[in-house]
Amino acid sequence: MNTFGRNFRCTTFGESHGLAVGAVVDGCPPGIPLTEADIQPYLDRRRPGKSPLESGRQETDRVEILSGVFEGRTTGAPIALLVRNRDVRSKDYDALRDVFRPGHADYTWQAKYGLRDHRGGGRSSGRETLARVAAGAVAIRCLEPCGIAIRGRVLEVHTATEPEAMEAEIRAARDAGDSVGGIVEVTAAGCPAGLGDPVFGKLDAAIAGAMMGIGAVKGVELGEGFGAARLLGSEMNDQIGEAGFLSNRAGGVLGGISTGQDIVVRLAVKPTPSIRKAQQTVDIAGKGREITVEGRHDPCIAPRIVPVAECMLAMVILDAMLEQAKYREFGE
Amino acid sequence: MNTFGRNFRCTTFGESHGLAVGAVVDGCPPGIPLTEADIQPYLDRRRPGKSPLESGRQETDRVEILSGVFEGRTTGAPIALLVRNRDVRSKDYDALRDVFRPGHADYTWQAKYGLRDHRGGGRSSGRETLARVAAGAVAIRCLEPCGIAIRGRVLEVHTATEPEAMEAEIRAARDAGDSVGGIVEVTAAGCPAGLGDPVFGKLDAAIAGAMMGIGAVKGVELGEGFGAARLLGSEMNDQIGEAGFLSNRAGGVLGGISTGQDIVVRLAVKPTPSIRKAQQTVDIAGKGREITVEGRHDPCIAPRIVPVAECMLAMVILDAMLEQAKYREFGE
Amino acid sequence: MNTFGRNFRCTTFGESHGLAVGAVVDGCPPGIPLTEADIQPYLDRRRPGKSPLESGRQETDRVEILSGVFEGRTTGAPIALLVRNRDVRSKDYDALRDVFRPGHADYTWQAKYGLRDHRGGGRSSGRETLARVAAGAVAIRCLEPCGIAIRGRVLEVHTATEPEAMEAEIRAARDAGDSVGGIVEVTAAGCPAGLGDPVFGKLDAAIAGAMMGIGAVKGVELGEGFGAARLLGSEMNDQIGEAGFLSNRAGGVLGGISTGQDIVVRLAVKPTPSIRKAQQTVDIAGKGREITVEGRHDPCIAPRIVPVAECMLAMVILDAMLEQAKYREFGE
Amino acid sequence: MNTFGRNFRCTTFGESHGLAVGAVVDGCPPGIPLTEADIQPYLDRRRPGKSPLESGRQETDRVEILSGVFEGRTTGAPIALLVRNRDVRSKDYDALRDVFRPGHADYTWQAKYGLRDHRGGGRSSGRETLARVAAGAVAIRCLEPCGIAIRGRVLEVHTATEPEAMEAEIRAARDAGDSVGGIVEVTAAGCPAGLGDPVFGKLDAAIAGAMMGIGAVKGVELGEGFGAARLLGSEMNDQIGEAGFLSNRAGGVLGGISTGQDIVVRLAVKPTPSIRKAQQTVDIAGKGREITVEGRHDPCIAPRIVPVAECMLAMVILDAMLEQAKYREFGE
Repeated sequence: MNTFGRNFRCTTFGESHGLAVGAVVDGCPPGIPLTEADIQPYLDRRRPGKSPLESGRQETDRVEILSGVFEGRTTGAPIALLVRNRDVRSKDYDALRDVFRPGHADYTWQAKYGLRDHRGGGRSSGRETLARVAAGAVAIRCLEPCGIAIRGRVLEVHTATEPEAMEAEIRAARDAGDSVGGIVEVTAAGCPAGLGDPVFGKLDAAIAGAMMGIGAVKGVELGEGFGAARLLGSEMNDQIGEAGFLSNRAGGVLGGISTGQDIVVRLAVKPTPSIRKAQQTVDIAGKGREITVEGRHDPCIAPRIVPVAECMLAMVILDAMLEQAKYREFGE
Repeated sequence: MNTFGRNFRCTTFGESHGLAVGAVVDGCPPGIPLTEADIQPYLDRRRPGKSPLESGRQETDRVEILSGVFEGRTTGAPIALLVRNRDVRSKDYDALRDVFRPGHADYTWQAKYGLRDHRGGGRSSGRETLARVAAGAVAIRCLEPCGIAIRGRVLEVHTATEPEAMEAEIRAARDAGDSVGGIVEVTAAGCPAGLGDPVFGKLDAAIAGAMMGIGAVKGVELGEGFGAARLLGSEMNDQIGEAGFLSNRAGGVLGGISTGQDIVVRLAVKPTPSIRKAQQTVDIAGKGREITVEGRHDPCIAPRIVPVAECMLAMVILDAMLEQAKYREFGE
Repeated sequence: MNTFGRNFRCTTFGESHGLAVGAVVDGCPPGIPLTEADIQPYLDRRRPGKSPLESGRQETDRVEILSGVFEGRTTGAPIALLVRNRDVRSKDYDALRDVFRPGHADYTWQAKYGLRDHRGGGRSSGRETLARVAAGAVAIRCLEPCGIAIRGRVLEVHTATEPEAMEAEIRAARDAGDSVGGIVEVTAAGCPAGLGDPVFGKLDAAIAGAMMGIGAVKGVELGEGFGAARLLGSEMNDQIGEAGFLSNRAGGVLGGISTGQDIVVRLAVKPTPSIRKAQQTVDIAGKGREITVEGRHDPCIAPRIVPVAECMLAMVILDAMLEQAKYREFGE
Repeated sequence: MNTFGRNFRCTTFGESHGLAVGAVVDGCPPGIPLTEADIQPYLDRRRPGKSPLESGRQETDRVEILSGVFEGRTTGAPIALLVRNRDVRSKDYDALRDVFRPGHADYTWQAKYGLRDHRGGGRSSGRETLARVAAGAVAIRCLEPCGIAIRGRVLEVHTATEPEAMEAEIRAARDAGDSVGGIVEVTAAGCPAGLGDPVFGKLDAAIAGAMMGIGAVKGVELGEGFGAARLLGSEMNDQIGEAGFLSNRAGGVLGGISTGQDIVVRLAVKPTPSIRKAQQTVDIAGKGREITVEGRHDPCIAPRIVPVAECMLAMVILDAMLEQAKYREFGE
């Protein structure tokens, strides 16, 4: 299943070391001004190789809009977005062809499909998120005139919460041939109340599915999240004054529907599984092997997940807005 | 959107104080032995009024299979499951008709639909989960012959982790007119490797969406979950020996596909929003009000979420098994 | 797959000789006035036993709304509609338990599912359309305030086109222990231009799928239909004047999108397969058998398909209206 | 909605005079041998400019597989198929920018979206079917090892049924600045019994939707089709002998499920709406205009619809096979 969304639908394709990665956006409202320049900045933020603390893969990640835009505006037709892969060094992966890297999808992909494109993780590579970002940037463009703004940031790396300390954690891990995890927070401001569709299309359920579907994410929470388990009802409930809610412990969603407050989501990101430290594994024949994963990897993937999470959140919210718009005109 | 699942599809209906609550299960494999007696025990576990620490609403919650079963076996036709509501005391809610209870879906439901059935929370009531449990029990019945077993339990209440201490926390909250949150853990044992559908139908994404869609759940994690953010790659990765994985920090899912190990999920459950303590709120006209929520409520909803979470997990797994089965016969 | 529609979704359940037949309507706009009295007249039109030319099965087909309506208006929650079966004479079918009736779904259902509820055709019975009619009546209720009216009629029976001659054809077939086919026409007046969703959700494609999915229908056409194959472009094209289209050979749909003219659909209905005349068939073991189908059957099913076709058309149109409404508010 | 299918899903994109046309195929079984050479012959059959009786647009229509294939086999990942447009003469359409061509989607597209890419019909052009053919060729490749073969042909043009007479009709229409309609027949041989999913995913309903969704198609029928309306039950029913069905008036589908016999479908194709003869129409401001449509058009589109109909039928059948495979392993 490579399509996300019910109303604003994003279908992605492409492998890490194939010819291209891309997306088809279907259900985009017509009449929205859109050019490659609206999308490129998001791809640039996600792009590897921007700092010594990221994978050294060199990609320009230039996006081409193949369809769905006419004279600078969306037409309601599907928008195909294409990025050609450039810096493909598949030879790096020859040694890994028949070995399952711990923490990666190698073993499970093989179990599921019976064969796999092992080069750079193939379809299971983080490079696929490029396509989500391209599609999500279109969603963000649609949300702008509605006054909805989405912002993400790294909240923690390992145990550090300050930028400098976080960077130090990443550097230390890299130097040790290891990697570290972190926590990412994404917020959406300006959402109207009423988004989300009980009981199986709840906004928080859609957000949780979208976020957990990003590689390396192992947990998702809204508002107080896991902290809510340790609160009393009188502490957790957001009371309401005549000017609006008095707090936002719910994280902007009640009963699966947006309250109109900021939507606040946090993701637990596991450490990048590719590490140089020796690990025990097996090959495709089940024979024991020791592995050290060379190649170009991010010692902490949390920073590059930020734009991905923003884009997924944008798609969920736009999808919910389109859903909600359906019912405006009916009733007597 | 009141339908859950792509292959095993569950559509639920009904309000807390309406005539009935029920589900239609579509896509159930034919030939599965099924009677009401397979479903009733799950409804009984979810049923209120079993102990003084639960809502005092008295419902027998007897389920009737209306269709889809012939001579004791499923036929492949949709299975309609019906439970009539009995102990409806809608008058309890008359005072709440035009007031938004803090922490509930009252405000957001009104914002979304422009009107609502206020009696007992209407469709947003936890009573709707009865229908999910009925449908999920059918899924559990289908999984049994595959050797898949699903078990849930309350892991924490407030800060307590031992049964007695947990019960004390609940009692204390109740006596104080307050409520407490908790953490629920659900595991599935016996799943084959290969379940889950990259990149937007990943098993963990489906689980996260299913769990976050249960009322009162504010966070979901698999395996190490949020703890993974504080680990190194060398600590988090599950290494592999010739006899299989050496650990299960991933919680049974890698790259969105099951590994064949136990699937381990934890949910953060917020405190029941219905409390007797006075809270500040507004009515439908926006005028400030003080509210104390009387009626029959659970001071901690975590225990009654256990069977709901089990049933949702069963539906996600069966759905993934049906998805996976599609591709078995192709290829050369 | 027992759910129809993307936005206005109707899930049906129930077998001919089971406990009940019903539907769950999901995605109905909130605020629509609705009672059983809005639905019952459509069920009454579809009901058997109204004349000697119809099946003698005596059912009252009283519908009960179980959910989704509060104080006389829809709430946006799913609307469950239930009709209990009353006049079940399953014994009539004992002789047919292991024999495949020619022209029926007996053989194919067995091939697909490996078992079947043979009583009265089980799920493949025309009785299932009762649920579609109940759901479609809700759609018709929603379309009324939009000024959209749907009307169907029998256009031909066998070779007759006048009411009296049609009735004579049906009577003659019945008396001969045989049955006859016919043609049904359904039109929708008052639809706005712009309904239908290229390229795979076209209005005419949705209509064709909906109509061909009614049992006994073997052909569907819009406007000139098969006659268009014998026209020149200059004859077929609907030219446009300043006051609107000058003709409606397209049947109200161009490029899969409604033109604002009447939508005109015709269905080819095959003769009822249940006939008393002796036919050659096999039993479940593959052994040759001669069969004469006794029981209560309509010698021509076309008249009773009229309300079903109307209701399906109503659901398709309402679905397209909800789809179209999604995009109204966007664009700059 | 630019995605077709539930299990084998084809998403198309691209406009007639845009940069490219293409498709993303999702849900293709893994392990199927596939190269561009498997797809190209179908595109070549659909390609314009092969004879003086077709549009003179010169396109090579070379397809590029961008993803989803590794070392000559499908991997289970989405298969992106791309064809760049070459012979774009958008200036031909400058005069039509603000005028609605009769019989085309110009008026309805404008009504729906509020703006449109008018160049060559934009997204509503028959050129979009190229993408369906590319995707359908993949489906045909998957069906081959199952022994399923799909064949189409032109059955009638205007009133002619013999090849030479059909060609004469087309030539006469072209010379008169006019166009003609026709009837196309498609058959699938080798399908197993049991395909199709009651009650809203019936095989014939899916076929009807797929076929009516091809531009210019105004009617669809299976087996006896509209002729069935003029038969008696004793004539229409396919009796069954110990060696199988004794006839195939049903066209291979009973109760929405395949019988194992040939599936036989016929489509009514309207005359190409682009004609040189003067027609009355209006412009975007509603002002009356006379129009003669110049440019490169097929005087009869039926022959070029043949491969499109074959490919759509292949996708429907493969989709139904994947659906059916889901349930093979369950039951006890």
